[in-house]
Amino acid sequence: MPEADLTIHVCTVCRRVREDLAEGYDQPGLGLATALGERLAGKAGISVEAVECLAVCKRPCTVAFAANGKWTYLVGDLDAETHLDDIVGAAESYAASANGIIPWKERPTPFRKGVVARVPPLSLREQGLREPDLRKKGSTS
Amino acid sequence: MPEADLTIHVCTVCRRVREDLAEGYDQPGLGLATALGERLAGKAGISVEAVECLAVCKRPCTVAFAANGKWTYLVGDLDAETHLDDIVGAAESYAASANGIIPWKERPTPFRKGVVARVPPLSLREQGLREPDLRKKGSTS
Repeated sequence: MPEADLTIHVCTVCRRVREDLAEGYDQPGLGLATALGERLAGKAGISVEAVECLAVCKRPCTVAFAANGKWTYLVGDLDAETHLDDIVGAAESYAASANGIIPWKERPTPFRKGVVARVPPLSLREQGLREPDLRKKGSTS
Repeated sequence: MPEADLTIHVCTVCRRVREDLAEGYDQPGLGLATALGERLAGKAGISVEAVECLAVCKRPCTVAFAANGKWTYLVGDLDAETHLDDIVGAAESYAASANGIIPWKERPTPFRKGVVARVPPLSLREQGLREPDLRKKGSTS
């Protein structure tokens, strides 16, 4: 069974100040999750998941890029409208990468400036995988 | 093969201002990684790993709690000396939890105030696991 190359978690709860709205805020992650889902629909190995709270709160929109065996990256300060192409481009680079580290020259500006944190992948032992499972995955048969 | 209950990634590179030192800074994560490793040695299912850069940089010490199938938590502003017991206590709560979310009443103050971000676990499909593997793990035989 093929593993996913990238899951994009999109935080949908953090609020952006909007003085033009009666509520005084909106939640731009909701629209971003929908827009990314549409743009990346049909891309094998990439999925988009809305999540209630990545605990970054003050830097909407925030997304996390994650995949089994790769570094996880949290990126904030993303604009749901103007950064959509950048997020899609970064997603394709991350999905194509072996370890989740997007080469600097391929990194869109919001992904150079907006990194909130990153976490290394768990080791194979910590994933509960045995060596034979991995060899099978790498087999050419 | 049992899976790990918790891996603590300890960032060892971020600098703390120390005007009393000739260099003007130290890197307290180095000592924290060593101290945690000693305190948690022999605790089944918990491992401590030094990591060069969790990209939080301005909030040393920073650690990430992670385990397969659980939420990942990044926590900063940790003092390598005064918060050691709190980190050990939080580690035991996290390791004992089913999903990585430490109940609020069990959360030491630095883990209430210092959360930098969190990321949900990957789904089983995204981990590349098949249902039979999981049933086997849950078997009582």
